Amino acid sequence: MPHALPPRLVSLADYERAASEVLDPGALSYIAGGATDEVTLQDNVAAWRRLALRPRILVGVGRRDPSVELLGVRRPHPLLIAPMAFQGLVHGDGEIATARAAAASSTIMCLSTLATTSPEALAEAVPDAPRWFQLYVFADRGVSRDLVARAVEHGYEALVVTVDLPVFGLRERELRSGVGSAHAERVPIAAAAGASGAMTAAGFAELVDPDLRWSDIEQFAAESSLPVLVKGILTAEDARRAVAHGVSGVIVSNHGGRQLDTVLSGADALPAIADAVGDQLDVLVDGGIRRGTDVVKALALGARAVLIGRPVLWGLAVDGAPGAQRVIETLLTELDNALALAGSPQASSLDATFVTPAPWPDQRR
Amino acid sequence: MPHALPPRLVSLADYERAASEVLDPGALSYIAGGATDEVTLQDNVAAWRRLALRPRILVGVGRRDPSVELLGVRRPHPLLIAPMAFQGLVHGDGEIATARAAAASSTIMCLSTLATTSPEALAEAVPDAPRWFQLYVFADRGVSRDLVARAVEHGYEALVVTVDLPVFGLRERELRSGVGSAHAERVPIAAAAGASGAMTAAGFAELVDPDLRWSDIEQFAAESSLPVLVKGILTAEDARRAVAHGVSGVIVSNHGGRQLDTVLSGADALPAIADAVGDQLDVLVDGGIRRGTDVVKALALGARAVLIGRPVLWGLAVDGAPGAQRVIETLLTELDNALALAGSPQASSLDATFVTPAPWPDQRR
Amino acid sequence: MPHALPPRLVSLADYERAASEVLDPGALSYIAGGATDEVTLQDNVAAWRRLALRPRILVGVGRRDPSVELLGVRRPHPLLIAPMAFQGLVHGDGEIATARAAAASSTIMCLSTLATTSPEALAEAVPDAPRWFQLYVFADRGVSRDLVARAVEHGYEALVVTVDLPVFGLRERELRSGVGSAHAERVPIAAAAGASGAMTAAGFAELVDPDLRWSDIEQFAAESSLPVLVKGILTAEDARRAVAHGVSGVIVSNHGGRQLDTVLSGADALPAIADAVGDQLDVLVDGGIRRGTDVVKALALGARAVLIGRPVLWGLAVDGAPGAQRVIETLLTELDNALALAGSPQASSLDATFVTPAPWPDQRR
Amino acid sequence: MPHALPPRLVSLADYERAASEVLDPGALSYIAGGATDEVTLQDNVAAWRRLALRPRILVGVGRRDPSVELLGVRRPHPLLIAPMAFQGLVHGDGEIATARAAAASSTIMCLSTLATTSPEALAEAVPDAPRWFQLYVFADRGVSRDLVARAVEHGYEALVVTVDLPVFGLRERELRSGVGSAHAERVPIAAAAGASGAMTAAGFAELVDPDLRWSDIEQFAAESSLPVLVKGILTAEDARRAVAHGVSGVIVSNHGGRQLDTVLSGADALPAIADAVGDQLDVLVDGGIRRGTDVVKALALGARAVLIGRPVLWGLAVDGAPGAQRVIETLLTELDNALALAGSPQASSLDATFVTPAPWPDQRR
Repeated sequence: MPHALPPRLVSLADYERAASEVLDPGALSYIAGGATDEVTLQDNVAAWRRLALRPRILVGVGRRDPSVELLGVRRPHPLLIAPMAFQGLVHGDGEIATARAAAASSTIMCLSTLATTSPEALAEAVPDAPRWFQLYVFADRGVSRDLVARAVEHGYEALVVTVDLPVFGLRERELRSGVGSAHAERVPIAAAAGASGAMTAAGFAELVDPDLRWSDIEQFAAESSLPVLVKGILTAEDARRAVAHGVSGVIVSNHGGRQLDTVLSGADALPAIADAVGDQLDVLVDGGIRRGTDVVKALALGARAVLIGRPVLWGLAVDGAPGAQRVIETLLTELDNALALAGSPQASSLDATFVTPAPWPDQRR
Repeated sequence: MPHALPPRLVSLADYERAASEVLDPGALSYIAGGATDEVTLQDNVAAWRRLALRPRILVGVGRRDPSVELLGVRRPHPLLIAPMAFQGLVHGDGEIATARAAAASSTIMCLSTLATTSPEALAEAVPDAPRWFQLYVFADRGVSRDLVARAVEHGYEALVVTVDLPVFGLRERELRSGVGSAHAERVPIAAAAGASGAMTAAGFAELVDPDLRWSDIEQFAAESSLPVLVKGILTAEDARRAVAHGVSGVIVSNHGGRQLDTVLSGADALPAIADAVGDQLDVLVDGGIRRGTDVVKALALGARAVLIGRPVLWGLAVDGAPGAQRVIETLLTELDNALALAGSPQASSLDATFVTPAPWPDQRR
Repeated sequence: MPHALPPRLVSLADYERAASEVLDPGALSYIAGGATDEVTLQDNVAAWRRLALRPRILVGVGRRDPSVELLGVRRPHPLLIAPMAFQGLVHGDGEIATARAAAASSTIMCLSTLATTSPEALAEAVPDAPRWFQLYVFADRGVSRDLVARAVEHGYEALVVTVDLPVFGLRERELRSGVGSAHAERVPIAAAAGASGAMTAAGFAELVDPDLRWSDIEQFAAESSLPVLVKGILTAEDARRAVAHGVSGVIVSNHGGRQLDTVLSGADALPAIADAVGDQLDVLVDGGIRRGTDVVKALALGARAVLIGRPVLWGLAVDGAPGAQRVIETLLTELDNALALAGSPQASSLDATFVTPAPWPDQRR
Repeated sequence: MPHALPPRLVSLADYERAASEVLDPGALSYIAGGATDEVTLQDNVAAWRRLALRPRILVGVGRRDPSVELLGVRRPHPLLIAPMAFQGLVHGDGEIATARAAAASSTIMCLSTLATTSPEALAEAVPDAPRWFQLYVFADRGVSRDLVARAVEHGYEALVVTVDLPVFGLRERELRSGVGSAHAERVPIAAAAGASGAMTAAGFAELVDPDLRWSDIEQFAAESSLPVLVKGILTAEDARRAVAHGVSGVIVSNHGGRQLDTVLSGADALPAIADAVGDQLDVLVDGGIRRGTDVVKALALGARAVLIGRPVLWGLAVDGAPGAQRVIETLLTELDNALALAGSPQASSLDATFVTPAPWPDQRR
């Protein structure tokens, strides 16, 4: 029997609605929530709509090519799956299902340090999933070094060091619902770091070293055989420091609006960063990408690729690996359409002349 | 018995409401819908309201003259009926009824390539309707050349080449409702292009050549005995290319918000284009014109004329030819009033000093 | 028995609500309505809220002086009652009641050409009401000349020539409700101009000469023993023409949003006009004044005085002359408070340093 | 039994809701209301959200230090409790309870002239509460001089002269509800100034001298053994005058939106003032602080400290001294989190590079 999804799942917003119906309230509040007033959470999505496209006509768009070069490697398209913790809360197959979707869609998956699947188990279960490893640097550096070694050994192609969680954000949905806890034994790396028993996400976060500094990053980059990206950068000043400290890429991100509220969205922080360092390292962006046109705008503003977060979890919640895959493919279909209609059949040819500040007001729903 | 319309049909918005009550859901979703999130669809209307008028007083407005010169011909007013496919879905008389409204109001009608009436049948049924022909260039160029020949032969005075549909927009209302299909045999030109059976609008769109280029347009313009206009232009860069490639006019348009979402409205794209090329060819605009004041603003910003789309279909749906005619006449009455109160009794004397960015916020309903 | 008003009538907005309960629907739609989409109607009120006050402290505000100099005469405060037609529709005593409120509050009342009371009757009934006469110039100039003579004879101190009604605005509330008509015999001047029977406001408007020009105004000003003000000016260009053609003052006005929709509010049009001609003639403004702080803002932007329109009718509807008087006194109380708290105890000392564009978004209700 | 608060009281907004349920309508309208249309009242909160944070990463934030130097004294954190009248209306323990919360959280409390507790009684009941005294200067200067002497004697460390109440604001909630009165005998200082019987807040306000001038302030500052701060300043011009007249600090404030409506919020008025005089005296700000991120923004814009008003009363209403304390501690927890995530572990190191105008629209709730 072919796998049939309800026909109403046309857009990513449809998946969001469907996921909110199937997820248990605790997992939903963990996934959906943001910090304090959720200003940034909402703005991550809204910010892309504050950009208008400037399409060109009559350029010949019969064949479109969404491929991009990322860390020196040509990739079939500019989408990655963002690192997200505890995917076992969303679907029984957890990160394995996500990896299957990644493999099927040739999408790089970033495995979270706080995954409910170990890096080895994932690599073994879905060896053909393109994969990067996301690193939280723990106060116990030995744990982190060990993690990196395991990632190198099991085919992870890059390290994404998340730097915007020195302390845990004030996520009031979690505080109110009292949920969002997971068992440390389900989070292999956390267990390795000495955690045990049921812990909230905030509890896991306490393992992270709040005193991490640029010098640590430089050392990581120097020691690592893998390219190192810093995730969680929002200013050009810090992007220039990233260049100075030898990283291969930066991911413009506010952690999905989950850490410090009222910071800029990726869409708004990106241009200054891409202008400052885009010719010296790879700039990626995440946060609020919901449409193929959002991807076009991100590339036009100087990103080499974009990370997709919650939408993949929505697909996962709705239908496991096929759901996550279909979310990504929906975005890729939209991207293909947008490249054609924007008159830039090569994704890698997009530039700032394709976007302009939108004259319309914010159109959040 | 005189034809009595309910007195509440005072404004075009009234016709919109009335049409939504009489149209079947499939036709309604086809007509009313736009691409993906419909940001541009909504903004087409809203953008005109973001412009304020700067009226002059005491200039003597006892006689108003709405006439404009268009492609070198003096026309009694600046309204045209935009090309719109499948008008047979809206009213049994389809394009014939629209043509009758056009003839009665001295309005140029643009017949769509995807009309449910052939160019010959229309010309024969309503020979006194001023008419232009809208051309989708099919991959099979012979079909297009044949179409042009038939248009020339049957009194169409200009060719409007639509260039913003190399691929079909992602119109989710249609995807969700599953409607919007028509039988190829009801679309004479599509049938001539080899289509058959029931097809969605997207299906018809696949006949269009996605690889059309400026050089093709130049060739069309050179070969054609009729003036050629390019419809679907949104940037000054492309407007300059239009000049370079020998066309007689450009229509600033985003295809009624149905192709690429989050592009600029006609109102917002017009000024830069009119500034760039308004003295070299005729600039027209469509999208969201709902009031006589909108027409005044378009002319003040440099358009020679404006195309009216959905409102004509609303009139058609409500009452066939008389309904469509009354929609146009409502706009003309409003235009006359606006010319008097703006203190520019000659429509052709409007200039940029009559408009200014509105200080009020967006006022969409 | 003392005249007791319900205690809830604290602000002008309270009077608006109360009036909407007591007025018949026809009169209400006539008073409350504006042109077409009522964008300008709403913005007249909202625009004052888009200005922020910059108060000063510790200047000594124990005694406040709201007086202003207007047409060379010191007036006790900067409020006037705007000319408004057909006040007999609002209250049985019509303009006479309004004049009583004017007399009691030392407010100049502008009697409308289309009043339901003749200039003589008003002057005789309330001889101590300070009064100006508003003139519509009819196609039959003899009628207008006669009117001016009668105004001069009966103590009207200035002529306000309304110039923004060469044709009647498209007031859709009236078109929809089918009301707003009055009997010509109740409008003495209209009857004098040859009107008879029941007429809509639009019908009366047809008596007005649409071909009035600056040269006519100049002639009026030259011939008149009274100062002439032009009402309905919205641009600095026209304000400069007013200076050149010898008028004594201009009233920045969009006719209460009833004529051409989407023109600027008085608040937004005022600064450029005051900057251009404020040192050469008196600039007044009307439209949307609802608070003492609005009056302060108008004066700070260069107006010498402000005209109050609909709020006076609300007071009239609620309670006749005492109601209208209380509306004016409410505004005067608020003005006094605002002068104290803004730190400008002399109304005539306000200047542009007391206002700044508001950082907040539009706050319409 | 330990004192258990409902777990839903996570944020200050939760306390606001809870307080609105327990307060009687009269007290609630007195506390919650603002002047006339409450534009400024609402904007006080909204304005902080119109600022975005620009966080830095990898600076080492394991230890945070919220301390600031204020009037030359190092204080453990930058929060103060704003002066607020009649706290006995909110809770039986009134200002005594507030002082207990202040003492427990090392927060400076500003005792209002119109307190329901005398300065002596407060100092005796909670001697370890850090305290400043807020002064309304009465027409009878002897009363004020006596007050200052009593404040000096009882350990108040600074004088806050409120200057934005020369007359009482038009607080329509109070006018409508008819409440907000208190008995003069419950307001010791008012009784000392000659008031007696039940009085509205407006009645008490009439004791204040509306003719206070900068020269009076200068004299106060010269005579006083305590540092003098001027509270209620909104422009750089006046801030420069404050420097010239010898005060030690200014508090940028609009009196909680209760005096003149449509003036700027503290957030919007602060930058120009801090730029003008921040290096010459201490600049504080109040109004609408509801989040730790708001405190960070205030410090980044140049404030040395912030005053918290209504939220303390909400805590007081909900749970007396422990409620007020928990409100302050909630803010301090949020501040600590924000310092870590903004990458400025020292509160006193924040500067203007940490904030930028928000690209999002106003997000009021």
